[in-house]
Amino acid sequence: MIQITLPDGSIKSVETGTTSMDVAKSISEGLARNVISAKFNDTVVETKTPLTTDGTLILYTWNDDEGKKAFWHSSAHILAQAIEALYPNAKLWVGPAIDNGFYYDIDLGDETISDKDFKRIEDKMLEIARGKHEFNMRDVSKLEALAYYRDQNNYKLDLIGNLEDGTITFCDHDTFTDLCRGGHIPNTGIIKAVKILSVAGAYWKGDESNKQLTRVYGISFPKQKELTHYLHLLEEAKKRDHRKLGKELELFTFSQKVGQGLPLWLPKGAALRERLENFLKKAQKKAGYEMVITPHIGQKELYVTSGHYEKYGEDSFQSILTPKDGEEFLLKPMNCPHHCEIYNSFQWSYKDLPKRFAEFGTVYRYEQSGELHGLTRVRGFTQDDAHIFCMPDQLDEEFKNVIDLVLYVFGSLGFENFTAQVSLRDPATPEKYIGSDENWEKAESAILNAAKDKNLNFVVETGEAAFYGPKLDFMVKDALGRQWQLGTIQVDYNLPERFDLTYKGSDNELHRPVMIHRAPFGSMERFIAILLEHTAGNFPLWLVPDQVIVLSISEKYEKYAKKVLNSLENDEIRALIDNRNETMGKKIREAEMKKIPYMIIVGENEEQEGKISVRQHGGEDLGMITVQEFTDILNKEVKSTLKEF
Amino acid sequence: MIQITLPDGSIKSVETGTTSMDVAKSISEGLARNVISAKFNDTVVETKTPLTTDGTLILYTWNDDEGKKAFWHSSAHILAQAIEALYPNAKLWVGPAIDNGFYYDIDLGDETISDKDFKRIEDKMLEIARGKHEFNMRDVSKLEALAYYRDQNNYKLDLIGNLEDGTITFCDHDTFTDLCRGGHIPNTGIIKAVKILSVAGAYWKGDESNKQLTRVYGISFPKQKELTHYLHLLEEAKKRDHRKLGKELELFTFSQKVGQGLPLWLPKGAALRERLENFLKKAQKKAGYEMVITPHIGQKELYVTSGHYEKYGEDSFQSILTPKDGEEFLLKPMNCPHHCEIYNSFQWSYKDLPKRFAEFGTVYRYEQSGELHGLTRVRGFTQDDAHIFCMPDQLDEEFKNVIDLVLYVFGSLGFENFTAQVSLRDPATPEKYIGSDENWEKAESAILNAAKDKNLNFVVETGEAAFYGPKLDFMVKDALGRQWQLGTIQVDYNLPERFDLTYKGSDNELHRPVMIHRAPFGSMERFIAILLEHTAGNFPLWLVPDQVIVLSISEKYEKYAKKVLNSLENDEIRALIDNRNETMGKKIREAEMKKIPYMIIVGENEEQEGKISVRQHGGEDLGMITVQEFTDILNKEVKSTLKEF
Repeated sequence: MIQITLPDGSIKSVETGTTSMDVAKSISEGLARNVISAKFNDTVVETKTPLTTDGTLILYTWNDDEGKKAFWHSSAHILAQAIEALYPNAKLWVGPAIDNGFYYDIDLGDETISDKDFKRIEDKMLEIARGKHEFNMRDVSKLEALAYYRDQNNYKLDLIGNLEDGTITFCDHDTFTDLCRGGHIPNTGIIKAVKILSVAGAYWKGDESNKQLTRVYGISFPKQKELTHYLHLLEEAKKRDHRKLGKELELFTFSQKVGQGLPLWLPKGAALRERLENFLKKAQKKAGYEMVITPHIGQKELYVTSGHYEKYGEDSFQSILTPKDGEEFLLKPMNCPHHCEIYNSFQWSYKDLPKRFAEFGTVYRYEQSGELHGLTRVRGFTQDDAHIFCMPDQLDEEFKNVIDLVLYVFGSLGFENFTAQVSLRDPATPEKYIGSDENWEKAESAILNAAKDKNLNFVVETGEAAFYGPKLDFMVKDALGRQWQLGTIQVDYNLPERFDLTYKGSDNELHRPVMIHRAPFGSMERFIAILLEHTAGNFPLWLVPDQVIVLSISEKYEKYAKKVLNSLENDEIRALIDNRNETMGKKIREAEMKKIPYMIIVGENEEQEGKISVRQHGGEDLGMITVQEFTDILNKEVKSTLKEF
Repeated sequence: MIQITLPDGSIKSVETGTTSMDVAKSISEGLARNVISAKFNDTVVETKTPLTTDGTLILYTWNDDEGKKAFWHSSAHILAQAIEALYPNAKLWVGPAIDNGFYYDIDLGDETISDKDFKRIEDKMLEIARGKHEFNMRDVSKLEALAYYRDQNNYKLDLIGNLEDGTITFCDHDTFTDLCRGGHIPNTGIIKAVKILSVAGAYWKGDESNKQLTRVYGISFPKQKELTHYLHLLEEAKKRDHRKLGKELELFTFSQKVGQGLPLWLPKGAALRERLENFLKKAQKKAGYEMVITPHIGQKELYVTSGHYEKYGEDSFQSILTPKDGEEFLLKPMNCPHHCEIYNSFQWSYKDLPKRFAEFGTVYRYEQSGELHGLTRVRGFTQDDAHIFCMPDQLDEEFKNVIDLVLYVFGSLGFENFTAQVSLRDPATPEKYIGSDENWEKAESAILNAAKDKNLNFVVETGEAAFYGPKLDFMVKDALGRQWQLGTIQVDYNLPERFDLTYKGSDNELHRPVMIHRAPFGSMERFIAILLEHTAGNFPLWLVPDQVIVLSISEKYEKYAKKVLNSLENDEIRALIDNRNETMGKKIREAEMKKIPYMIIVGENEEQEGKISVRQHGGEDLGMITVQEFTDILNKEVKSTLKEF
């Protein structure tokens, strides 16, 4: 008999040789039907692998990331089998599961795969899946493995050549065999829906000097409707791509001449960004922050002191030399060293603390061109940065205040679905962290207290703290269910040491303050990109570039339209006018494209009655009302999302 | 007889050999008394030099810069004579007139001059001056000149060695002789007041490897009261030094670690700067500007296109290289190339123009460490930049609008004393300028029309235009009478060519727009420095960091003081509180130091009556009033300086 510990802590005594699937069955038939993968003592096992020692068992279903991984890994085997069947000269390299689906890299010889071929590959895969084949793992010797692929597949031979004898396993299912480490679903039959997504070129081993193979991307699901939903989300994500929307809504652009990864904010985007910044500034002022402004460069020495040079120097933008004097500057990758120097320009007393210095500070960090992506991966971005310098005993309250601010930001921008992660140090290796045990305990309990006190939905990750302090990160889910890391709050014991920051205590002695780094948005660029994709460009009314457009039915009502526009502008409403000699249909279509929340239509009736007809973005008709009634509606809508901090 | 043309165009026929002084006498005895220097046919002459050809004569008095120059140059001779008398071993090098006074560089051998010696030098100089000695110029041969200084003064020998025989002149007065090019006052007697200002070390010929000489700085005046006034201004300027005030008022600081010439804006300074920016943003919005945001770096190629690289590349901050990819960036020295790229991201039509892109854009330009000075000469500064892209026919109106904006800025900030300079091209050398004759004529007449239309007090400088277009600069006089160049408006035909900017005209063809560069503040850093010195830190109420401070007479009234503070803050008044257990005298002194415009004193009477006692910065007592009455006073004061644009 062996003892199997389950995740809920319960222990099952079972006979040696019992499989994970047997354990699942012993719990419930329903679970057994859904189990697709398992981990025993932190190692992935097949659900039919006999368990022969005591240990901890986790059973995974489709709802677990590990379950999906096994599902897509198994699907990659089937893709490979289908490709071999359809392209007899194909030579396989490797095919892993990825975040969304799987791929396989293949040398197709003289053949190619285009989107016209996707259907027959999918059909072949489904045909194989329907065979309900089991996956069978077996150990093979290195000689055996080499013999299997000899004269057949130089890619696999190269792979096996780098493996140790005794560690090599093959996996068989149906007529297909692959070199494989394991982690499969019980049988191919549970794969009910398959989609080939795309093909791309991929150099063998990622090396440009090697041959370019064909990478076939696919995804699979246990139910057809899940595939349909996924394809819908994919379509929706394309429509919401912030690069596409940013262009359509005239928010930002890039210029090859200025340089890649360096956004240029167009008027509508710059105004939107300023509204966001002012929104946060106002809340920060109430929360006792003080704005500062620091330069975008600093002497190399500054970053040597802060430790950033040691960490990023080589892989960053290189030094800026002066033509004479031999001075050496760097683009600032962080605002913190500058804020430390501002702190250091006074001798503070304990009565002055906390000091909270905030800056919308634009920082520059080198990213390889291939890594750049719209506003989410850029080379220059603006942090809504602040550093709180406080006494260790003030951490608790400061943390709570920062969480309040972050929740206020999320609430005002429609991010209702978020979780938090608290990263603590590994207490087993205290030597890896800077700062005293006492201070770490204070900081960690401050974070945990604050997270509990504020009812955050949070997980604790032990050992995930930075060497300089524990932290709390916020993850939001957007409207398509995608997860984004946004705001962060970090405790730092390191920079106060490195910059020799002090305050005079009530004992008249100098003490070391502790620093909190925090940024609710994170980066203005990335946040706006995420907000664009989350809202599909339909920004909250308080933030949207143009709130209203006035459309005149014909030139006859141009004057009245302008009068309406003026009275809206006097009420500080952001309004446009479209007095072109075009059909109302065209004007409305274009206003819809621009995602303007409200359209005002004015013609004979409206002018006679001194009223306006209002149509909401998306089509709802609010009827004929007065301008005053309309501005009341707008003000009410703004107030309902944008509360006072 | 010769014909002498005077500056007013009148011509005098005089006998050959007539002197400038004779001409002055023939005009009026008063003029003759005041003439101290003259220029004949663009050459400086002594007032007693016989004129022997036809020519143009300008007579200078103390009120002219040229007059002061002769006065101070002559004073330098007297300084040298006094030094020789007091320090027999002294060897003279050179001693020119400068903007404010004169200096002489001297090798004092083993002796030194300290401020204790200033008085006896001044006395000696005045004694010489009282002798009413005339200055007599004479030609000497090189041999004669060398013989005069042989074994006496190696510095003068070196100087003479580099001169051409036949061009060497000596000047004698009293017992003193110096190598000299001329330009003296009629006699030493008009020098009535003398002050030695300072001594400093100065390397011979400015070369660090040479011997260090002693540079003695002095100034002199025709009247004692002018010296008194000058010394008062000097004292006042020291008190108003923006570096001193910036520290006292906690506006900005510098850090050696961040780097010299890179200001760090402290909370009070950052808030002040933001108020200034918001003030201009609001006016700009009304004037149809759109804000944009661009990065602080750009590819080298961008500045090669704009021509800035060719002009500044070598003497600027050097290229920022990427660690891979071989890309080359530069810190942006100007915002215009970025704004051209924003313009270029759309195809505009004539109906869209003018486009007015504005940005508070921080630019970086290398300055040698020795040139740096507080906020007026820095390495990074923020321009209140905007570029107007318009059709040539729109220049007239755009220029007028920009002038309105500049006048609004000056008026709101208490700069009442300003002039303008219009710089036009030299029509004799059209090949030196880019752009068609027709466009230049349009632009120049647009500027001149606008300047006249707006009743500017302006001078026209022909030939002073940039190669790319004519311009209008504003010069303000501060409270100490010092002149500063502030706002500039420039027409540019060059960048539209270089960036191939176009708009579609009503003829459906592509045309080239013209650009206007403009910046009412110029640089935020420099402007704030000038404003600090102009106002001595007593900023207009709408701009000042803290408008009010509440002082409690004792701890007993702390609570009431806080209540007053809260109600002020609710009225959006920037208020501080001083509840320390200090004497009222000390609290008031400190508030005066901080230049806070209003002090509110609260004690028993005030609390009982529910009122406040108000004291203005400088001492005026406004008596006991209600908080409401007080906020009405503040609001009225703000409205009286800060009008709507």
